[in-house]
Amino acid sequence: MIKVGIVGGAGYTAGELIRLLINHPETEIIFINSLSNAGNKVADVHEGLYGDTDLEFTDQLPLDKIDVLFFCMGYGDTQKFIETHNIPENLKLIDLSMDYRIKREGNDFVYGLPELNRRSICSAKHVANPGCFATCIQLGILPLAKHLMLNDDIIVNAITGSTGAGVKPKPNSHFSWRDNNISIYKAFEHQHIPEIKQSLKQLQNSFNSEIDFIPYRGAFPRGIFATIIVKTKTTLEEIEKIYIDYYAKDSFTHIINKDIDLKQVINTNKCLIHLEKHGDKLLIVSCIDNLLKGASGQAVHNMNLMFNLEETIGLHLKPSGF
Amino acid sequence: MIKVGIVGGAGYTAGELIRLLINHPETEIIFINSLSNAGNKVADVHEGLYGDTDLEFTDQLPLDKIDVLFFCMGYGDTQKFIETHNIPENLKLIDLSMDYRIKREGNDFVYGLPELNRRSICSAKHVANPGCFATCIQLGILPLAKHLMLNDDIIVNAITGSTGAGVKPKPNSHFSWRDNNISIYKAFEHQHIPEIKQSLKQLQNSFNSEIDFIPYRGAFPRGIFATIIVKTKTTLEEIEKIYIDYYAKDSFTHIINKDIDLKQVINTNKCLIHLEKHGDKLLIVSCIDNLLKGASGQAVHNMNLMFNLEETIGLHLKPSGF
Amino acid sequence: MIKVGIVGGAGYTAGELIRLLINHPETEIIFINSLSNAGNKVADVHEGLYGDTDLEFTDQLPLDKIDVLFFCMGYGDTQKFIETHNIPENLKLIDLSMDYRIKREGNDFVYGLPELNRRSICSAKHVANPGCFATCIQLGILPLAKHLMLNDDIIVNAITGSTGAGVKPKPNSHFSWRDNNISIYKAFEHQHIPEIKQSLKQLQNSFNSEIDFIPYRGAFPRGIFATIIVKTKTTLEEIEKIYIDYYAKDSFTHIINKDIDLKQVINTNKCLIHLEKHGDKLLIVSCIDNLLKGASGQAVHNMNLMFNLEETIGLHLKPSGF
Amino acid sequence: MIKVGIVGGAGYTAGELIRLLINHPETEIIFINSLSNAGNKVADVHEGLYGDTDLEFTDQLPLDKIDVLFFCMGYGDTQKFIETHNIPENLKLIDLSMDYRIKREGNDFVYGLPELNRRSICSAKHVANPGCFATCIQLGILPLAKHLMLNDDIIVNAITGSTGAGVKPKPNSHFSWRDNNISIYKAFEHQHIPEIKQSLKQLQNSFNSEIDFIPYRGAFPRGIFATIIVKTKTTLEEIEKIYIDYYAKDSFTHIINKDIDLKQVINTNKCLIHLEKHGDKLLIVSCIDNLLKGASGQAVHNMNLMFNLEETIGLHLKPSGF
Repeated sequence: MIKVGIVGGAGYTAGELIRLLINHPETEIIFINSLSNAGNKVADVHEGLYGDTDLEFTDQLPLDKIDVLFFCMGYGDTQKFIETHNIPENLKLIDLSMDYRIKREGNDFVYGLPELNRRSICSAKHVANPGCFATCIQLGILPLAKHLMLNDDIIVNAITGSTGAGVKPKPNSHFSWRDNNISIYKAFEHQHIPEIKQSLKQLQNSFNSEIDFIPYRGAFPRGIFATIIVKTKTTLEEIEKIYIDYYAKDSFTHIINKDIDLKQVINTNKCLIHLEKHGDKLLIVSCIDNLLKGASGQAVHNMNLMFNLEETIGLHLKPSGF
Repeated sequence: MIKVGIVGGAGYTAGELIRLLINHPETEIIFINSLSNAGNKVADVHEGLYGDTDLEFTDQLPLDKIDVLFFCMGYGDTQKFIETHNIPENLKLIDLSMDYRIKREGNDFVYGLPELNRRSICSAKHVANPGCFATCIQLGILPLAKHLMLNDDIIVNAITGSTGAGVKPKPNSHFSWRDNNISIYKAFEHQHIPEIKQSLKQLQNSFNSEIDFIPYRGAFPRGIFATIIVKTKTTLEEIEKIYIDYYAKDSFTHIINKDIDLKQVINTNKCLIHLEKHGDKLLIVSCIDNLLKGASGQAVHNMNLMFNLEETIGLHLKPSGF
Repeated sequence: MIKVGIVGGAGYTAGELIRLLINHPETEIIFINSLSNAGNKVADVHEGLYGDTDLEFTDQLPLDKIDVLFFCMGYGDTQKFIETHNIPENLKLIDLSMDYRIKREGNDFVYGLPELNRRSICSAKHVANPGCFATCIQLGILPLAKHLMLNDDIIVNAITGSTGAGVKPKPNSHFSWRDNNISIYKAFEHQHIPEIKQSLKQLQNSFNSEIDFIPYRGAFPRGIFATIIVKTKTTLEEIEKIYIDYYAKDSFTHIINKDIDLKQVINTNKCLIHLEKHGDKLLIVSCIDNLLKGASGQAVHNMNLMFNLEETIGLHLKPSGF
Repeated sequence: MIKVGIVGGAGYTAGELIRLLINHPETEIIFINSLSNAGNKVADVHEGLYGDTDLEFTDQLPLDKIDVLFFCMGYGDTQKFIETHNIPENLKLIDLSMDYRIKREGNDFVYGLPELNRRSICSAKHVANPGCFATCIQLGILPLAKHLMLNDDIIVNAITGSTGAGVKPKPNSHFSWRDNNISIYKAFEHQHIPEIKQSLKQLQNSFNSEIDFIPYRGAFPRGIFATIIVKTKTTLEEIEKIYIDYYAKDSFTHIINKDIDLKQVINTNKCLIHLEKHGDKLLIVSCIDNLLKGASGQAVHNMNLMFNLEETIGLHLKPSGF
């Protein structure tokens, strides 16, 4: 059994991670650290867990008792934690924050997108889990980058659910405002653009275009649904072949030749991709569950790889469907 | 033109009051006081007003410039305001808080439910606007009280929208939690029960039963939908006649002999009532828009009466329907 | 491996059953019969299954190839099917329709509520799966019936999601109408009342009161949330003990001493129950996922019992939480 | 008083038209024709009208009793109606279908977008009311066309509510499917593209680019929210001036220099436009209520112009806000 610790246990990604791990046949949760909730029952804080677990949050950090530590904290906090704590040499780390996604001097974290870096993840000690928008968008275009087909600006519209904005109540997550509403934010300037560009350059070194990304706030709690437009003269048949080949060995990403909708992936670790060609424009539709494939599901996927487990263990989830 | 001032201008009831008053042909808004928003444009704070008004919030209180002052503040704040400010002798006051709803020594506010107290309101200087649940429930049973028919415990289930909980973001108004969810709170102990009992006793002095009221939080922003069960041997035909007679002169309350649903009243100042008889149980369905008939619409209705205007002026609203 | 057949494969309960069975470690789906969808891929019809299954609907009925047959059809259709087909002697049958829930001459189906009839189900060949409302309400009051405490009319309000009304598009399942709306239907006359009364009498033969049940249509797809009022002088402590004892050996029903909400059970096979006492009124809150504990999850639970499997196999589901 | 007739009275646009006209001070509804609902009360069919009107649907067509006839029928039906009925010479016609929007030999309908064709509408006898998407998108880019600034492909993403798909229940308007869901349809091929191009060419004869329009189905009943990307080197300040000048005399279209969201326009006849510049890309956000500015509100606006009324009469609507 893999012994697991979690820090930042009160947030949405920690909750989802716990929901996954208590049903994962190869893991045991040793501690869930949360300063704000120390002593409280996990089931009183995270929806859906009554009857499933008696775990309590702790303010302790028995790092020597675990094999892997998940960081479920906000921007900057993982780095602060690592700089101020003694991390055992052999402890595997999986960071769900943004802190270690971008390569830089002294950063030994592998970017944890299995469809891009499976091999490195399998041997990694430290993995930086990708952003939710970044996952959905990259999976939509990585096969094109691999074939050096990204030679023009990429247009991206992507709608996210309210869980993407975190558990802390804010005006734009107030039900009265968000219900039946649509809005955009950080157009062309979202913080996930750099990690997307980094991955594209990894496959297509010549990539030098813009990603014109408009993030939308949607009136639903879970999921990201993206439409992407890329200019190309390649036929739809060839492109579909490229995508199917690229994802041939991946368990969670599927090319679907029918119309897809967001609910197809909710409460699953899947990414569905649908392709259409209109004139010389390729339309790519890509969708994921932001808390699973876009966060905690992918983190468990990475853990499975890092511990040489079959990659789908603990991730055969019943889709909610509705 | 009636010159209007508003204190507590940043909350939901103030926003709805402003939406009504800027289209009211007989009123002019002189000031909207809000400490937290002084200097900000009203249209930047209250949804839906771009292009309709250039009003700004102020921290000033020119009470001598107005004919009527609306209090849109929380529990206790109206009383505090009145105790610490010089209220001009002739200034009419309409309080949307709970502070003056219950009769007590020294409280000269008339309880502002026109279907109960129209005459007193017409000559009142100070009016306490009823609570939203209290309005919906009272309108459902007042005709029975008038005929002394309330001689057993009254069962009430009523579901409210998220605007009922106020503009301040809280865990139970977080979209991620409230969307597609249902819960109850303060069962049998809601703070509106005393004002309901007070009204029932006004019509049926012998009333001495319990109101077993379960408030639900619904996954919608606006509206209250109540079902009420009362034991009675009177036939449905007689009861319908009693209700139709009771509300014969009221503009906003209608008895409907078809199934009704909450959306029938959204964005209107109406109360719809539907009656069914099952054995010796009378089922009453009553619904209102909590921000209109349950708050700001009723406040304007009261203002119309206090200034001897036709009661529906400014309240011919296009229902949203969807 | 248990070999499974499904008839009526295109509806909501069949979809949910398939979502469960493809992850169930002890079952193999042999056929899914649907006349309207014969030849179509299951994943094209039932949301969430892309990448999980290549199954297709069939118009064939190889009843000799299976160990258990699930009926996922509407009212009357199971009986018609059984009367017009040769059912192999040893084939186990689980019926999700209403056809065999009420005991009558010649009906050998066991009423499949494990919390009431576990022993009989374990040895049953034919099981009638309870109704969704009926499940939620019965689990809320069975312990009282066992202690002969139901001696007065029972007040029930219960809200159901849109999946309860079936896959066929209808005016009251139109998004434009149902979104942000609330309504009631069949008050005091819902078709599940007889099966509830039958179970209560099974435990408390003297039961002779009314169930004043008001069903609500809620603005959410999944789930049933019920509040039940019962008169009793017994203390809350004694009642809680009675409930905890009653459900001590049940895996899916939990007594929670905190406020509960509908989302706690969505995408799980659980029933959560919360108890409050107000004067001499006992308030019981009970909630389930209508498609799981209220239909297909309970059907799988029954199958597990009928085949002497551990009852929770295939039902350790990740709650959706949001 | 303008005497009004309506054909196709049972659909969503007719319902909204009725909601507007019963409060319009200068109109009287003479008849509402609906074959499917003849004899039924309008308030029993269209949500929100109980207490507001006793009108009934009729199968009669007293065309000689009215001044203006609104067509609220589906594609092709207006043309069929006109070809098979004697339309009085002086009867004004306003068609909400697509039948007469595109200029062609023998089509004397003026395209009824007041912000483009106010003068012609004022003297028109026959007006073709624009499509909902077409209105929202055109208002977002007409000022650019006027300044001949549309010289590259235009990227449009626009999300519509479920009322855009009509009252007839369909799988993609089923609440169980649409709630919390997002999907696209008719990408690059929506039927409103030709009327948009026609308008752009009217102002910028050289316009010869593509409109890459992806329509989304949103999980809300009312509204259209569009984001549009246009390449231009002109500064934001100059562009804002161009827009403000273009709409200086229009009552319903407003340029907002803050973030906007869909709810700002719901239950109003407004179009809000927000502009951002990112590098050489101009981002235009445009939103309307599809049933008002996108259909029945614009039809009333056109009627006001055709009868030389002040254009905002009957259209001072209280926004729903939530």
